[in-house]
Amino acid sequence: MKKAVVTPYEVKGQVDYGKLIKEFGVSELNNKLLERIKKHTKELHLFLRRKVFFAHRDLNWLLDEYEKGNKFFLYTGRASSTEGVHLGHLMPWILCQWLQEKFNVEMWFQFPDEEKFLYKKNLTLRDTEQGTLKDMLDTIALGFDARKTKFLVDTKHADLMYREACKVAKKITFSTVKASFGFNETTNIGSIFYTSMQAVPAFLPSVLKGKNIPCLIPLGIDQDPHFRVSRDVMPKLGFYKPAILHSVFLPPLTGMGGKMSASKKESAIYTTDSPRQVENKIRKYAFSGGQATLSEHKKKGGNPDIDVSYQYLKMFFEPDDKKLQQIYDTYKSGELSTAEIKEILIEKINKFLKAHQQARKKASKQVDKFIFKN
Amino acid sequence: MKKAVVTPYEVKGQVDYGKLIKEFGVSELNNKLLERIKKHTKELHLFLRRKVFFAHRDLNWLLDEYEKGNKFFLYTGRASSTEGVHLGHLMPWILCQWLQEKFNVEMWFQFPDEEKFLYKKNLTLRDTEQGTLKDMLDTIALGFDARKTKFLVDTKHADLMYREACKVAKKITFSTVKASFGFNETTNIGSIFYTSMQAVPAFLPSVLKGKNIPCLIPLGIDQDPHFRVSRDVMPKLGFYKPAILHSVFLPPLTGMGGKMSASKKESAIYTTDSPRQVENKIRKYAFSGGQATLSEHKKKGGNPDIDVSYQYLKMFFEPDDKKLQQIYDTYKSGELSTAEIKEILIEKINKFLKAHQQARKKASKQVDKFIFKN
Repeated sequence: MKKAVVTPYEVKGQVDYGKLIKEFGVSELNNKLLERIKKHTKELHLFLRRKVFFAHRDLNWLLDEYEKGNKFFLYTGRASSTEGVHLGHLMPWILCQWLQEKFNVEMWFQFPDEEKFLYKKNLTLRDTEQGTLKDMLDTIALGFDARKTKFLVDTKHADLMYREACKVAKKITFSTVKASFGFNETTNIGSIFYTSMQAVPAFLPSVLKGKNIPCLIPLGIDQDPHFRVSRDVMPKLGFYKPAILHSVFLPPLTGMGGKMSASKKESAIYTTDSPRQVENKIRKYAFSGGQATLSEHKKKGGNPDIDVSYQYLKMFFEPDDKKLQQIYDTYKSGELSTAEIKEILIEKINKFLKAHQQARKKASKQVDKFIFKN
Repeated sequence: MKKAVVTPYEVKGQVDYGKLIKEFGVSELNNKLLERIKKHTKELHLFLRRKVFFAHRDLNWLLDEYEKGNKFFLYTGRASSTEGVHLGHLMPWILCQWLQEKFNVEMWFQFPDEEKFLYKKNLTLRDTEQGTLKDMLDTIALGFDARKTKFLVDTKHADLMYREACKVAKKITFSTVKASFGFNETTNIGSIFYTSMQAVPAFLPSVLKGKNIPCLIPLGIDQDPHFRVSRDVMPKLGFYKPAILHSVFLPPLTGMGGKMSASKKESAIYTTDSPRQVENKIRKYAFSGGQATLSEHKKKGGNPDIDVSYQYLKMFFEPDDKKLQQIYDTYKSGELSTAEIKEILIEKINKFLKAHQQARKKASKQVDKFIFKN
């Protein structure tokens, strides 16, 4: 098997998360640490309980600070394109919203509208700016607290951000970004600079408030290289290194390798998909761990560990641990058919999307409240 | 003799301007073109008449457009540091002020307060920001028209500039900036990106006014590499290539090699120097083309072509062509001594600085009028 590739600009192959923990030098999010979180949150979100967020950096330190009364803020982001938001994007955002509620903390949400413009040949800035406006609706729809959530748009907040990004950029050489992001001599100088902009929200609140505030960044593990670079820089600028919570990738519908990708239409469920589209995609594309025929399935049973429908239920849509176990057992025994497990998932996704789409509609009136004003 | 080095980040050695015209691929500012300018300006500034501005790009095209009624705007800039403004810096600015007056055009003045911060290890952003405020006073003191002059400060106007810089940056590879600026793998990613910010004022007025406006950039020829790069990019973004007027360097006091440099204190006359400081510097450091002793000088005569005092009079301080010729002849014959030519220069510089310093004092109340507000 080929080695999986995991960078902010490419995820492919079957990702071995255990190996990634060693390669990236992150720590496992173990049960002891989950218990420590639970002391504060009373319950654990399914993303934590089921290790969808499976690794971290400096989370113990962050909780030490919190317990000393030194509250953190949350930071995550979304680089918009012409492609919409899919379920995979939502995972860190949903966890952020939950953490905001449980810890009663500020959320800084970055929309780097230049990132994909710089990286993708055919995208225009108008494309990414229009995408950003749409993606803000998805964010707001998840229930963030308008009073405690600040949207930063790179090109619109550059009067605040570019100055800080220069401080970061001065401490990073081409050689470092080359190694971290797989860049080369033909990479454009905007992409080369960009990681400095992604670093900024991790310390901008500290700059604005004139004191050092801890930061927690929930993100897909493919984004970790940005912060591997900027975590080295931040103490040199007098700021804490941000703590990080890393999620696995929601697998593409078509199978367990890589990550759900908005640029492969058949691999993703979008937040704007209709019930009918969801039905069709799941029925047609969701990779099955079942047997070739129903009678064979009844006899030999299915394999939930590679079954995408089961994985989605486990990672996202079935919060009830008992019900999930039952689905696992009956699918494995062959009692639950592939068609049936797909129907369970379709119903769950459509219920989620119906509520999300309603909230998304209302969100358009709220955008202005979320845009950060200094 | 070693080959001279001329980049925005280093000027050293005896510069052969004839060679530079070929190497840089610029055109000579010949008498025919000067006559064409004179048709519009009635007279020629000594910087033009005496070829202190000696080369150009696309000046004929710019005048074609002007004659068709398509007015240009002027653009130049100043990257501030802890070191003040010296006489060498003033040359493009003085020409800009003169051109503004004669052609009745807008002047866009960039203060890239991040450039030297990024390039020089020990400079802080506070240093360059404080420097910028001081340098604005020198600019205003030269008599720019407040209604037609717009100051852009990179970190303060980044909400306008960063977005446009990204469009430029997308079209420039690391390989290009490496070749143009002598960068390598240890160069920081802020310096790598910076040339995109320097490109922006050359088309920002076109963006803001929604139409393509020709641009003329008077600058020291060491800055040409920035525009060699961005002139390739601008047509791809739908803008005209800016026309450029290149000046030679005002030689350092200490001799004809390199350029007057604010980082070598003894080589430069600052705009804030006292009459006494000017006297001391000229007497002590101004490289002389005279003979070792007065009697020898009277006998053999001096060499005005390598005499820094004569060069300053020619390039900057003696506008009267007849008087200049007389100084040339009498210095060459030995009639005018080194001490005497230095006294002529000292008086001229101190007269200029007295008026400049008075205007500079008044300028502090005017800064706000010059800062661009969108």
